[in-house]
This record gives sequence, C-alpha cells and structure tokens, in this order.
Amino acid sequence: MEQKGELISYRPDIKVVDCTIRDGGLVNNFYFEDQFVKNLYTANVAAGVDYMEFGYKASKEIFDVKEFGKWKFCDEADIREIVGDNNTELKIAVMADVGRTDYKKDIIPKSESVIDIIRIATYINTIPAAVEMINYCHDLGYETSINIMAVSTANENELDIALDILGQSQADVIYLVDSYGSLYPEQIRRMADKYLAVAEKYGKKVGIHAHNNQQLAFANTVEACTFGVSFLDATMSGMGRGAGNCYMELLMGFLRNPKYNINPVLKFIQNQILPLKKAGVVWGCDVQYMLTGQQNQHPRSAIAFTADEREDYSNFYQTLLDRE
Amino acid sequence: MEQKGELISYRPDIKVVDCTIRDGGLVNNFYFEDQFVKNLYTANVAAGVDYMEFGYKASKEIFDVKEFGKWKFCDEADIREIVGDNNTELKIAVMADVGRTDYKKDIIPKSESVIDIIRIATYINTIPAAVEMINYCHDLGYETSINIMAVSTANENELDIALDILGQSQADVIYLVDSYGSLYPEQIRRMADKYLAVAEKYGKKVGIHAHNNQQLAFANTVEACTFGVSFLDATMSGMGRGAGNCYMELLMGFLRNPKYNINPVLKFIQNQILPLKKAGVVWGCDVQYMLTGQQNQHPRSAIAFTADEREDYSNFYQTLLDRE
Repeated sequence: MEQKGELISYRPDIKVVDCTIRDGGLVNNFYFEDQFVKNLYTANVAAGVDYMEFGYKASKEIFDVKEFGKWKFCDEADIREIVGDNNTELKIAVMADVGRTDYKKDIIPKSESVIDIIRIATYINTIPAAVEMINYCHDLGYETSINIMAVSTANENELDIALDILGQSQADVIYLVDSYGSLYPEQIRRMADKYLAVAEKYGKKVGIHAHNNQQLAFANTVEACTFGVSFLDATMSGMGRGAGNCYMELLMGFLRNPKYNINPVLKFIQNQILPLKKAGVVWGCDVQYMLTGQQNQHPRSAIAFTADEREDYSNFYQTLLDRE
Repeated sequence: MEQKGELISYRPDIKVVDCTIRDGGLVNNFYFEDQFVKNLYTANVAAGVDYMEFGYKASKEIFDVKEFGKWKFCDEADIREIVGDNNTELKIAVMADVGRTDYKKDIIPKSESVIDIIRIATYINTIPAAVEMINYCHDLGYETSINIMAVSTANENELDIALDILGQSQADVIYLVDSYGSLYPEQIRRMADKYLAVAEKYGKKVGIHAHNNQQLAFANTVEACTFGVSFLDATMSGMGRGAGNCYMELLMGFLRNPKYNINPVLKFIQNQILPLKKAGVVWGCDVQYMLTGQQNQHPRSAIAFTADEREDYSNFYQTLLDRE
C-alpha cells in the first residue's frame, strides 16, 4: 500500500465529520440542551469541520418520542431551530438505520430541507434494503453515505460482494466502521485497501468511523487517512457509545489544512464537555471495553458492567470467553 | 517495510517489559507500598511478563534519599526483599540515567546481584558517556539496553551517527523512545525501520517505549512490533509520567504467545491500581497532554497545568505556541 500525502503538506480531499450529537446521543438518549447543540454548531463552523451529524431519522412508529431526546428523530424544524438556513460552509448530516426509519415519510426532498447528507447505516445482511434507501435519498437530491457496521465479524467474501453492490449504487461515500473497536492498525490498512479499491473503481470516497475500545480510534483513523481514506469521523472528547470515538481534539492536531482550527474545539470542551462529565455523563475507554474489543464482541455487556459500577474485571473477562 | 509475523501466530522473539514501578514512580516519587510491589511481581510472573523494571539506580549524592521512595535507588537488598533470589522466568531490570548515577559505585558485579539487565537512558548529546556505561555494565556481566530519549527532537543525521556508535557498543537492545508522545504511527514505522537496520547489521534487538499523550502508545507499540521491534514496554493501566504509557492490559490482549496471560493483570488492576487511583494518584491522557504531544514538547507544562487543576485548555494551548 502506498501512502497518500505526508505530514507536512495536506490533502484537500479530507473531510472531517463531527458525530458528537449522533454517537454521543447513544450515551444520554439524545437529551442534549439546545444551548449545547447550538454551541457545538458554532464551534464546528469556527473549527472548519466539514459535516455535523445531528442525530438519527428514527421511526416514530418504532420508537416512543417520549423516551428519547429530539435528536433521535431530527425533525426538520428542530434542526432549523439550531442552524436557521445554515448559511455556512458546514454541511448538515443525519443518520438513518436500515429497518428503523420511515424514510419515505420522514425524509423530505432536499430542496425543502437544510440537511445535506443522509448517512445510511446497515449490516451486511441488509445491503439490498440499504441500496434502496441510498438511491431513494440520492433521487431526492441528497448526498449519501453508507456505513457497513460490524465488519469485523463479516465474512470476507460476503464483504467483497457487498462492497461491489454498494459501488454500483448512488452512494457518494462508503464507510469502514469498526463497531466493536476490535480492529488493529494492520487490519484497518488491509480493510482500507479493499474499500479504496472499490471506491476507485466506481468513483466514490471512503470514510472511517472508529471506536476507542482499545485506544485505537485515533490511530486507526489517521492510519486509514494516511493510506487514502478521506471522510474522517470524530466527536468532541470522543463522546460516544461505550468507549466512545476518535477524539476531535486529536484529529484537529493531526490535520495540516489551515482551514482547520483547534481553538474552538478546545473552548467547546472546557465550556460544554467538562460540565457534561461533571454532571455524571459517562463514556470512554475502560478495561471492560478493552476486553470486548479484544474479543471482537458488541460492547453491550461492557455497558451493563459500567452501569452496574462493577470493578471485577477478571470475572467479567471469563464471562466473555463463553460464546456458545 | 515488510510485516514480521501476523495476527494468528506469534513471534517467540517478543519480550514484554513491565515499567510500572519505574515510570509510574515518576507519578508518586517512587513511594509504593511493599505489598504493591510484591503483588506486581507475582502478577508479572503469572502473566508471563519477561522483564520487570524496579526503578532507577539514582545517585544518592545527587538525590536526597529522604525525598524519594526507595525505588528511585533500587538497593540490592530492597529488590531481594521483594523477589528473594528470584527463582522465576521473570528477569529484573533497573534504569540508570547518564549523568545521574554513580554506576561505578552502585552497580555491583552481576554474580552478586539479582538484577539481570541495566537499562541505560541517554539523550543524543551524551552518547559517548552512555557507551562507557553500557560497556562497563556489560563487562560486569549484565544484559544492557540503551534508551535514546526525546528522539522526536533529534537531528536525523545525528541520530544516524548515534545509532551506529551504539551498534558498535556492547548493548543488547536499542530502544526507540517517544518521550513526548508526539510521534504518529507512520513516523514510528520510519523510525523503527532505521533502528532495525542498525540492529540487524550489528546483531542487536530493538525495543519501544511509548507515551500516551495522543492515545497512540498502544498503537505505536503494536505498529513497531508488527514491523520487527521485539522489546515492548508497558505499564499496568498505563501508569507513568503525565499521560502515561502503553497499557499492559491492551498489550496482553494483542499478543498471541500462549505464555502470556491477561488474568493476573486484570486482577492486579482491580486489586491494586483502582485503589491507587481512588487515593488520588493521577496519570493518563488528557487534553493538556494531547496538546504538548501535538506540539512535540516535553510534558512538564502539562504536568503543572494538571497539578494546578486548571481547565482552561484554550489559554494553555496559546502558551505552548510561544517557543522563543
């Protein structure tokens, strides 16, 4: 594999995507204060972040609106309440899960929406449904990306087929997603190579969304980037489900494009993230998440371990080894 | 560069070095309870760790013994109090800093000592003094390693000359040390390539000692390992100066040699490290350390920021930019 660019210059194809509200919403059921979201938007614009993901377009038939904050649903009016007509360089993203969204009802034509990109999330067994959503959203006028989740457990042959199908879809960006935070840098390079080959063939971009179970989210993001991946997901102080994500403040320090500015990120962290943490909102790398990452398992057992305030790592580890 | 080995098999040349007392001692001035050190020794033996570093051989002329715990000095009797004659597979290491040790007085012949390896730490401007110490300790019968610190600020041409001089010395292992936690994986690969070329020429091993300022200590350690570095430093839960080191529990999860066992490490963390943290001993990655790492600076300003319990990251960052 050949490196694209080096540490002194910069690649203009790189795009930074802030997922703080969407992945961070998995920590607090999407209950963010409006002021937090407004300040995040302002910080992202000032920092030169390219995309800000506001949350999910979840089905109100499936999910009870009384049990979640509004960013689980991302109504057009709620986004506009924060961004107005969004007269900035920052693009607005939302995520739509295959099978959990009434996209034909809830996603309106781009001409009527302030949203720029619909990020569609799928597992490998629902690729055809994902393609239907991709093409539907594309035809409405949106940019689209496709996240294939949990690829660390996917059959490699099936993944090759899935990537080729997605290559033929209208998706603009195909995301490499390390859902369990289990992939080591050498695996990320091999995967990125595979994704980039498809992307090159079909004229698409590749993105990476990493989790921090093994303290590898930032490392895997810069490794993928070094070899050609260009859409880079990050969140403020890594806020996200379980062990969290790639830290925006680390990514801002790595990128060399002068359009990026770490100062607004630092101010947002000291003014908004620290109070959130002091109020008891918990995320981030801890032993239980390292162990699920090492075992290539969903972090749900580690999240439960955390919620129960347990510290018996050794017992917990033994339970992870039972997989039958 | 070619990968050495892959993720399914293992390389028998890999050695794991626990530096918890030595690098962790920089956090608490080497005041560890004897029971902590004994439990760590027992855990390392059970985990299959290859070397345990007990601390420094610091000069009692230069440093006041009343201001530090005993592991700053590592008297033979104190080590024997923990390990007896050390009838185990685990080897005992101590570190000796060039210019801060009375090595001709304090380092006794290997035949009278339970210590196995003297790890000599130097900056690039004291290489001749380091070589004198290496050869002296070698002639006393010890294994020796040499740590060139702060290479991220060294002139590349001078580093090449230093490595060649060290190649001609009696050192068994040459360490790549990322003192400021500033190096990205692609830089670690280039550096490792350079060190490995010298090591191959002169029949030596290469080690890595990484710091976690940018959450890259583990990533850089496995990257270096993947390309042939074989002595891998780690500490329990990353305990070490400032942002700390590569986590032992992550490294144990990565290595495939069945001699390594993560269970004793997990038990040590829950029984010994968690109480230490609850007692207020502080280390680990935080924004201030990320910023000194990004700027390739010594973490001393970040350590002071932490001690003062400051949270004004943005102001702190601006002060780092003044380098004149």
